[in-house]
Amino acid sequence: MKLGRLNHIGVATPSIAESVAHYRAVMGAEVVREAFDLPAQGVKVCFIDTPNSQIELIEPLGADSPIAKFLEKNPLGGQHHVCFEVPEIHAAKAWFESKGARVLGAPRIGAHGTPVFFVHPKDMGGVLTEIMETPAPGGH
Amino acid sequence: MKLGRLNHIGVATPSIAESVAHYRAVMGAEVVREAFDLPAQGVKVCFIDTPNSQIELIEPLGADSPIAKFLEKNPLGGQHHVCFEVPEIHAAKAWFESKGARVLGAPRIGAHGTPVFFVHPKDMGGVLTEIMETPAPGGH
Repeated sequence: MKLGRLNHIGVATPSIAESVAHYRAVMGAEVVREAFDLPAQGVKVCFIDTPNSQIELIEPLGADSPIAKFLEKNPLGGQHHVCFEVPEIHAAKAWFESKGARVLGAPRIGAHGTPVFFVHPKDMGGVLTEIMETPAPGGH
Repeated sequence: MKLGRLNHIGVATPSIAESVAHYRAVMGAEVVREAFDLPAQGVKVCFIDTPNSQIELIEPLGADSPIAKFLEKNPLGGQHHVCFEVPEIHAAKAWFESKGARVLGAPRIGAHGTPVFFVHPKDMGGVLTEIMETPAPGGH
């Protein structure tokens, strides 16, 4: 496997609306995509474009959201995960497993409409890592 | 100000050597730059290229390294900061200060040889944010 594009950095926030206002006013963000719910992952999502990558804002969706605990520890929000692209998700899953890295669950459809999985941060130098099949050009 | 390129994600590690081995073996990293000391910031640094950005591995340099406390809390390492490019560092500093975001110290030369500063995570949605003057093409 070759290290792929840094598709996005995942930033947890208690409020996408407030974070978008911050990124527009303070960081000068100009391209803010429409926010949407991703019930399969228990988060609401909003992408902000940088010239070469994206910031994925994630807000808890429902009380048992997997990011609820993160926000308890980090009430302002913060860096939650990083996401790299791979050409084919099942080959990537087999690759990581062959290296002894714990893949968290079966691949499922992620925020860009292609399959993703997460790799346990304890096997990734403390970095919660999302692996995403490269979206088709012009995709979500 | 316009949101600039995501120059790199900063990842703290207790050992650049071990992290480089991990990124090569597990993540498939192929372009690993030479590690070097950055005494002004109390860290040893090593950049790994992704197709569109970079991962900056940072290891403590000396006992009073500013990342020593982070590694006490996160012994495996983890996501430490994110870095965005700006065209001119002093204009950027004035911009952030005008928005009420606390700039941590005067601009100083960063890992790519251009001036940088950090913005307080409490003013940035919990994200420790490095602002870097865009390196010249073909620079470090």
